[in-house]
Amino acid sequence: MSIRELVILGTASAVPTRHRNQNGYLLRWDGEGLLFDPGEGTQRQMARAGLSAHDVTFLCVTHFHGDHCLGVPGVVQRIARDGVRHEVRAVFPAAGEEYWRRLRHASAFKDTGVITEWPLSGEEATVPAGELTLTARPLSHPVPSYGYRLAEPDSRRMIPAELERLGVRGPEIARLQREGSVRAGGRTVTLAEVSAPRPGQKAAFIMDTRLCDNVFALAEGADLLIIESTFLTPEAALAEDYGHLTAAQAGRVAAEAGARTLVLTHFSERYGDEDEPRFLAEAAAAFQGEIVFARDLLRVPVPKRRP
Amino acid sequence: MSIRELVILGTASAVPTRHRNQNGYLLRWDGEGLLFDPGEGTQRQMARAGLSAHDVTFLCVTHFHGDHCLGVPGVVQRIARDGVRHEVRAVFPAAGEEYWRRLRHASAFKDTGVITEWPLSGEEATVPAGELTLTARPLSHPVPSYGYRLAEPDSRRMIPAELERLGVRGPEIARLQREGSVRAGGRTVTLAEVSAPRPGQKAAFIMDTRLCDNVFALAEGADLLIIESTFLTPEAALAEDYGHLTAAQAGRVAAEAGARTLVLTHFSERYGDEDEPRFLAEAAAAFQGEIVFARDLLRVPVPKRRP
Repeated sequence: MSIRELVILGTASAVPTRHRNQNGYLLRWDGEGLLFDPGEGTQRQMARAGLSAHDVTFLCVTHFHGDHCLGVPGVVQRIARDGVRHEVRAVFPAAGEEYWRRLRHASAFKDTGVITEWPLSGEEATVPAGELTLTARPLSHPVPSYGYRLAEPDSRRMIPAELERLGVRGPEIARLQREGSVRAGGRTVTLAEVSAPRPGQKAAFIMDTRLCDNVFALAEGADLLIIESTFLTPEAALAEDYGHLTAAQAGRVAAEAGARTLVLTHFSERYGDEDEPRFLAEAAAAFQGEIVFARDLLRVPVPKRRP
Repeated sequence: MSIRELVILGTASAVPTRHRNQNGYLLRWDGEGLLFDPGEGTQRQMARAGLSAHDVTFLCVTHFHGDHCLGVPGVVQRIARDGVRHEVRAVFPAAGEEYWRRLRHASAFKDTGVITEWPLSGEEATVPAGELTLTARPLSHPVPSYGYRLAEPDSRRMIPAELERLGVRGPEIARLQREGSVRAGGRTVTLAEVSAPRPGQKAAFIMDTRLCDNVFALAEGADLLIIESTFLTPEAALAEDYGHLTAAQAGRVAAEAGARTLVLTHFSERYGDEDEPRFLAEAAAAFQGEIVFARDLLRVPVPKRRP
């Protein structure tokens, strides 16, 4: 599978509305499926999006406020009921482990052994994800909260014209990639001569938080930046008090971090769909890239690799 | 308020579908609001139905399988967040008290003091509900499960023609009602002479269970009988194994108990809306009253008082 997309399952902060479920985001990345912050109703939103428990390989919780985790029991129980065989890594702030245990065993069901636990602590924590790396860093919110960054390793792409010019052909190409150099045309040809850097793709998932250094660290160079923008600038003081961002701040993060596609989400119930232009305008004042105003069941592709 | 109606919030057993949320039923009865078996997503279904946390005075859980209780945290947290001031009585099987505690404190929130706990044990337990009585009896399911019955006390209605005939007038009528007898026209007039029995209205909420004596006891004379019919008769063996009823059995209960309006719900995901005629036909084979095939967000009035 080479699908790389975000499936948005819910976009409401705090309380669901008729049109917005509580949070829920499945980042599908080749064979991995990272389910971030499943709020209440995520199990049903997944059905609506045509997704199943088998699509989930990571269950990542930023913090234990209800709108970010009350969907955990439903997802866990579906993983068990639907007989998921692969490992599912549950990642969450260690400081909230008691809440995790309650949600993990919230009601009676026939349990599964596939869920492993990866509690987060410290200034930077990493969880392996195949060839990818999932990094978490603490944010600034009234309860312990971590943001996430998923990164593909940097690599190099071969330049066919240079291979041809220096006479590296057939099985010698694979050997060059493997060993770093190869003899051809009477000299040593190095990988650097016939290839160019290919930066790994990156995605960042940041909520809930005030602006802080780790917001920028997590977002750095993200191809896809999913970030809360609970409020607009007129409510900036409220955002600061409750530990949230405004759309203007989210745009500033995207711009300073050199992000590419910016997904705004986690909107306060005080706003409606009619406020979309205000959110876009605030973010666009700082950020020139693509901006998505999240809606339930929207799918956002990870943008094509940087050239 | 004199509204007496059932607001159906969810009708799916086990797993939600696109068209059916997990269980959830608000029985509105004058000033009381009894929320039965809130499954995941009940908080949002309430918003869709135009209901708020303020409408809930009882939170009744039959048993701690996820489809009957995973909506508890969302409802509890809304009761707290929305500043509900009246008492909310939480009623649940005492054997599941550990699950109750996990759901009650599932994630971080600013708690409320209005929720009181009424764990159920024994063969019959009653919880006061204003002038009403809420009775619970154990059912037959793989985990401890209780069914509920809400009953208004029997009373008497005055017969104006008889009052007139025997010469009881004005403030004497109230005195007769209060004291049971009064002097009029040179003799003692008793309440029985000038009034007729007025049976209290009753509702029963029965799930999940196999057929057992308590199913009939709870349903006895119910004006409104809400009962699970997870399966149809071809799956009767499955129903027995998993501790559920068929629509035919639900119809038999309604008929033998002398119920009036029968609400079938909690359908297995194997059935679709196209199966409605089969459910109705199975129940109607035994029961002659009104039968409702439950759908999400449907409102079912408690039938008018028996004549």
